[in-house]
Amino acid sequence: MGIVVQKYGGSSVATTEKIKRIADTLIKRKEQGDDLVVVVSAMGDTTDDLISLAKQISKNPDKRELDVLMSTGEMMSCALLSMAIKEKGYDAVSYTAYQIGIKTSGQYGKGLIDDIEDTKISESLKEGKIVIVAGFQGINEDGDIITLGRGGSDTSAVALAVKLKGICEIYTDVDGIYSVDPRKYKYAKKLDVIDYEEMLELSSLGAQVMHSRSIELAQKYNIPIYVGLSNSDVKGTIIKGVDKMNLESKPVTGLATSDDDIAVTLKDIDADINILSNLFESIGSKKINIDMISQTAPLNDKVNVSFTIPKDEQEECMKIIKNFASDENISIDEDITKFSVVGIGMKNTSGVAAKMFKLFSENNINVKMITTSEIRITCAISQQDKAKAIQIVANEFNL
Amino acid sequence: MGIVVQKYGGSSVATTEKIKRIADTLIKRKEQGDDLVVVVSAMGDTTDDLISLAKQISKNPDKRELDVLMSTGEMMSCALLSMAIKEKGYDAVSYTAYQIGIKTSGQYGKGLIDDIEDTKISESLKEGKIVIVAGFQGINEDGDIITLGRGGSDTSAVALAVKLKGICEIYTDVDGIYSVDPRKYKYAKKLDVIDYEEMLELSSLGAQVMHSRSIELAQKYNIPIYVGLSNSDVKGTIIKGVDKMNLESKPVTGLATSDDDIAVTLKDIDADINILSNLFESIGSKKINIDMISQTAPLNDKVNVSFTIPKDEQEECMKIIKNFASDENISIDEDITKFSVVGIGMKNTSGVAAKMFKLFSENNINVKMITTSEIRITCAISQQDKAKAIQIVANEFNL
Repeated sequence: MGIVVQKYGGSSVATTEKIKRIADTLIKRKEQGDDLVVVVSAMGDTTDDLISLAKQISKNPDKRELDVLMSTGEMMSCALLSMAIKEKGYDAVSYTAYQIGIKTSGQYGKGLIDDIEDTKISESLKEGKIVIVAGFQGINEDGDIITLGRGGSDTSAVALAVKLKGICEIYTDVDGIYSVDPRKYKYAKKLDVIDYEEMLELSSLGAQVMHSRSIELAQKYNIPIYVGLSNSDVKGTIIKGVDKMNLESKPVTGLATSDDDIAVTLKDIDADINILSNLFESIGSKKINIDMISQTAPLNDKVNVSFTIPKDEQEECMKIIKNFASDENISIDEDITKFSVVGIGMKNTSGVAAKMFKLFSENNINVKMITTSEIRITCAISQQDKAKAIQIVANEFNL
Repeated sequence: MGIVVQKYGGSSVATTEKIKRIADTLIKRKEQGDDLVVVVSAMGDTTDDLISLAKQISKNPDKRELDVLMSTGEMMSCALLSMAIKEKGYDAVSYTAYQIGIKTSGQYGKGLIDDIEDTKISESLKEGKIVIVAGFQGINEDGDIITLGRGGSDTSAVALAVKLKGICEIYTDVDGIYSVDPRKYKYAKKLDVIDYEEMLELSSLGAQVMHSRSIELAQKYNIPIYVGLSNSDVKGTIIKGVDKMNLESKPVTGLATSDDDIAVTLKDIDADINILSNLFESIGSKKINIDMISQTAPLNDKVNVSFTIPKDEQEECMKIIKNFASDENISIDEDITKFSVVGIGMKNTSGVAAKMFKLFSENNINVKMITTSEIRITCAISQQDKAKAIQIVANEFNL
C-alpha cells in the first residue's frame, strides 16, 4: 500500500491499443490500494522517427533543439495514457519534466537528474490520481529541455522512486535479466536476482536492458528494481544489493557484447604522461566515452596507444586526435566486438581471465585489446568471432 | 530595423524541405537588419494526426491531456526550424510556451493569452539570435498547457508583436484577404486593406484565414497585421484601423459562409425570460458558442426558440437542453449554411438587408434565420443554396 513507480518502455506503449491495455493494468493495481506514478517512454519508434526528421534538416542537428524535438515523444505517450485512464472512469494526470521540476544538469542528450520537485505529484496522489510522467527528460537551470540519453526513462523512474520513497518496477519487452543475451545464445539463463554492480557492468557493456545511470542511482539509494514483462505470470529479475559471500560459488554471472565501438590507435607518440593526459582530457571534455585503453611499452621514447570510442562519436573525436598525431599515425579498426564477462564472485576467484583466454586460444579467436575491472573482464575481438565466443564462454561458465 | 514578429502556418512548414526554405527567407530578412521573432504552427497535418490518435483512445478525449498532446506539434516544428537556421550558420533558439512564460487563462483548447515574459526573447535578440516560438500554446497558473484553439498561432504572433512593440506579419497559404472565399467564387476580389472590425466579423463567421482573437488583440493595441504569401511578390492584405468615412461608398466589403453549425429549436417553452436566460447561461458556461438566436412571439404563454451552435458541441449542448425541454419538443436542423455580408460602410447605408432579401426571394432561396450586428447581416440558409447565394450577392455588391 505504498507508492509504486512503474516504467513502461516504448514497445509497451507502441499503439493506442497497447496504451489502453496498460491503463487497465494500472487501474487493477490502483484498486489493490497502491499509489501509482508511471513513467512512459515514447511510443514504439517515435524517437527514431523524430531523429530521422532532424537528420533531414542537418547531419549533426543542433543538440539543444534535438532535445526539444525528442522530448515531444514522451509528452505524447503520457498524455495518451492519462486520457486512456480517464476514459475508463479513473482519475489521472500527466506531467512533463518542467511541470514537476525534474532538475537536470549536464549536456544536451546526456542529462543527469539532480532533483525532482515532488509537491505536485504528492498532491495528485493524495487526490487519488494515477500520475503519469514523461520520461527521458529534464529541465536545466536555464529552463532548457535536456534529455537523458537512450533508455533514460529508466533513470526517470528510479529518480522518482528515490524522491517519493517508493518501490520501482521497470516493465519492458524482455522477461528479466539474462546472463547472456537470449537472442544471441538460446540456452541463456534468466537471473532471479542480480547485484547492482554486476548489472552496472552489464549495462555499460551494451546489455541494453537498463539505462546505466538508473542502476547507479538505485545502488546509491539502495532501491531494489524489478525488471520484467507487464501483464505476465513470468517472474522477472530483481536488481539489488546482494550479499557477496553467497555469490562466491559462481564467478561469472553475466556476459555481454557490443558492436557499437571502434578502436583508435595512435602510433609513435612521445612517451610523455602529460601528452597522454592532455589527449584523454580533451576527449573527455567533449563527453566522449573512452572505454578500453591500452598502451605499449616505450620504444625510443615513443609509444603506441589504443582506445575504443562509440562509433557515433568518431567524427568529433578525430577533430581532437588530429592535434596529437599526424594522419599517417592514426589508425581506426571498425571490426571490434567488445566481449565482457561480469561477476561479483570474480573478486574472489582467480583464473577466470586465464580460463577465458585459453578458450579463445583453443578456438583461434584473436584478442585485440584487454581491459579489466574488479568484477569484469573485457576483450576486443573481431566481429566474426562473436557468436563462437558467446557459445564457448557461456557454456564454460554455465550462463 | 525593428522587431518583426512573423507567423508561418502549418502548410508553410509541412516538410523539412519547406522548413529549410523558410530558414533561408528568415536569414535574408535578418541580414537586412531586422530582429526576428518567428511563430510556427505544427507541420502540415500534424495537429489532425494528433487528434486522431487521441480519438483512438476516447471519443471525447480529456481536454487537459488533449492540450498536452497537441502542443507537441508546435514544439516539433519550432525545434526543426531553429535547427535549420543553425545548420546554415546563423544563430537561433526555440522557445516553448513555458520557457517564455506565455501566461494563459481560460479553458483547455480555448486559452486566452494574458501576458508574455519577454526577458528571454529580448536577451536572445540582443545576442543576435533568430527567436523561434511554438505557437498555439500557453501555460496557465497551475503550469498546465493550454492551447489557443484552431489558428491560435496567429494570436501567439499578435500577442508577441504587442509585447515586443514589433510589427506583425502572418504568412499563410493564401495571398491575402478576399471579399469572398476565392475557392467558392472565382471572381473574388482581394483587398489591399481591411478594417479590424470587418476582419473580425469575417473571421468569426468562418472565413478561416485568421484566428478571431488575434484580430481583437491587434485592434486593442492598434497593431497592423500583414497577411500574405511567404517568398512571393504578390502583395497581401493589411489589417488595420481604417478611417470609416472613406469606406462609405462601399457598403459591403466581405462575404463569408460557414457550414460548421446546426440549428437547434425548442418548441413550446414557457415565455419566461428567466428560463431563457437560464438556458443561455447554462450553455454559455460550457463555453459553447451560441451564434444566431431567434424567438417567436408568445402564443398561449409559450414560445419557440431557435439558435445555432457549432456541430461539434452538439453532444454537450444536448445534455443541457434536456433540462429545458422534452425530447419531442427539441428539433435539430443540420442543413444550415450561415451566410454573412460584412461592411463598416453598412453602418451608414440603409437597404443592404432589404437588397439581400430581395435577391434571395427572386432566386427562391429560403431564409431560415436572420441576425444582424452593426456591420454584419447573417442568414441561415439551406446548404444547397450556398453556391447560388454567393454568386448573386457577390455580383450585386461587387465583391
